Amino acid sequence: MIVIDTLALVSGARDGNIRSLARLISLIEDGSESLPAIMKELKPHGARVIGITGSPGVGKSTLTSALIKSLREKGHKVGVIAIDPSSPFTQGAVLGDRIRMQDHFLDDGVYIRSMATRGHLGGLAAATPQAIRVLDDAGFDTILVETVGVGQSEVEIVSHADTTMVVLAPGMGDGIQAVKAGLLEIGDIYVINKADRDGAEVTSRELRNALALAPQDPEREILLTSADREIGIEELVLAIDRHRLYLAKSGLLEGRRIDRASLEVEHLASAKLRAQIKGEPLRRLAALVADGKMDSYTAADQLLAQERIK
Amino acid sequence: MIVIDTLALVSGARDGNIRSLARLISLIEDGSESLPAIMKELKPHGARVIGITGSPGVGKSTLTSALIKSLREKGHKVGVIAIDPSSPFTQGAVLGDRIRMQDHFLDDGVYIRSMATRGHLGGLAAATPQAIRVLDDAGFDTILVETVGVGQSEVEIVSHADTTMVVLAPGMGDGIQAVKAGLLEIGDIYVINKADRDGAEVTSRELRNALALAPQDPEREILLTSADREIGIEELVLAIDRHRLYLAKSGLLEGRRIDRASLEVEHLASAKLRAQIKGEPLRRLAALVADGKMDSYTAADQLLAQERIK
Repeated sequence: MIVIDTLALVSGARDGNIRSLARLISLIEDGSESLPAIMKELKPHGARVIGITGSPGVGKSTLTSALIKSLREKGHKVGVIAIDPSSPFTQGAVLGDRIRMQDHFLDDGVYIRSMATRGHLGGLAAATPQAIRVLDDAGFDTILVETVGVGQSEVEIVSHADTTMVVLAPGMGDGIQAVKAGLLEIGDIYVINKADRDGAEVTSRELRNALALAPQDPEREILLTSADREIGIEELVLAIDRHRLYLAKSGLLEGRRIDRASLEVEHLASAKLRAQIKGEPLRRLAALVADGKMDSYTAADQLLAQERIK
Repeated sequence: MIVIDTLALVSGARDGNIRSLARLISLIEDGSESLPAIMKELKPHGARVIGITGSPGVGKSTLTSALIKSLREKGHKVGVIAIDPSSPFTQGAVLGDRIRMQDHFLDDGVYIRSMATRGHLGGLAAATPQAIRVLDDAGFDTILVETVGVGQSEVEIVSHADTTMVVLAPGMGDGIQAVKAGLLEIGDIYVINKADRDGAEVTSRELRNALALAPQDPEREILLTSADREIGIEELVLAIDRHRLYLAKSGLLEGRRIDRASLEVEHLASAKLRAQIKGEPLRRLAALVADGKMDSYTAADQLLAQERIK
């Protein structure tokens, strides 16, 4: 067994040691047994957490890179967590995509990390807040959480950021696609990127109409950017600041942070419970269900009953 | 309390009564308390289940519609379940999208249904197989399960179909987007739709290269279609038949069905466990975690300990 000096790693990361920081995030990614010990060491500093989501191809990485540049000019230390739900063997390719962010590789006020979190106890929903805690403890002021794809889990994660940005692009399909992907409920700020392309105004109008139907708080803004030309980025940073102020004044900030902690604790606890019901008894009951000899509810009840007897 | 005559609904659906069938699927969607009783009534007939997934805008609905037409010409009864992870208030818009399938509305050998499954105990992963069981029992030979977006949950669902089709389109972003979305692991058949557009051959080549890196079974095919012109559809139906034959001969079919049942039972059981740990104690512990007064693992342990004492 390898003994991990968690205290040394945590204080290393605090002192700006990038290798310590990288190692801590890898331990989270792998669902290491040291995680409970690491989490005990961390102290919250109130970093601002910004979620960035949207369909593949809308330019999230380019936008993230432009945001980093702007935030760095304002003196922020910026951490980026790019959530990657795909499997280990595709890692190389995904990291390749991060090359777009290579402008920032030599800047020690920026830390960029792709995370694959299939191994983690509690999945994405527990691993993401833990990585945020590590970056917060290490002194990053703003943490950007970028998710690829738009699915239930990804939506769940970004919706627990302090501020969630939904990124769209013109011509990626009609406004209905945003509706289909469930993006109307989760955004605090909507960004139509690649706004120099045809159809940006149409997309903006469709989105505005769709949002008007959604019974959400009224502070949601729609902004147009062309991230590759760095157009609209300053306005976006100001909109993020405005949203932050709104959260703090309205008292919503504290509520969102408790929501995030609640989700994390719930996922950790239910992953522990789930681990108990996997294995041979489940497989045997599933075979009966597949053959039509037992229904799934009866199987679930029998599974739980067996576990309680143990 | 409304008493539901589950036996009457199930036999109604078997006799081709569409209202009975629709009511059964609504009960699944709502996570009705009658579900255990309904599931006990159902008998499996071995319907073929085909998952269809891909990013928004690739033309999944048009492709599904073309597939239905072809399968109907061959005498199949076809059920379609379109999984919609978005919330109730967007339902109208999503159903509007189904208008593309209106050619089939007057054909009683076709049943098309959007499902929003946020209320369901066990979520998408448990609700989808239940809806499949209802359609199978009602005599549908082929069941198409279409998912919007590409996220962890959606991927999990379609990967438990007998045959999973991943739909791409040229110019929706580079091959890397498919990699990012985790689509390389799950497809049995890859369809490049809108193949009359520029870039279809490039997308096909990139995909072929990416798939060559993936340590998967060798039976995966790449097909080109233009669903709106009904080009390539017969070849696609033949590829689905070939894959079905391969599954049956190799013995994989039975394994996939047990996998699906296993996932369903596990999600039902863990949803029951999870329901127990929600509520006031979780919220109180989460507030401590958010304030930095307790770490998330300690909170998860305390939560489980409290539950066991009860």
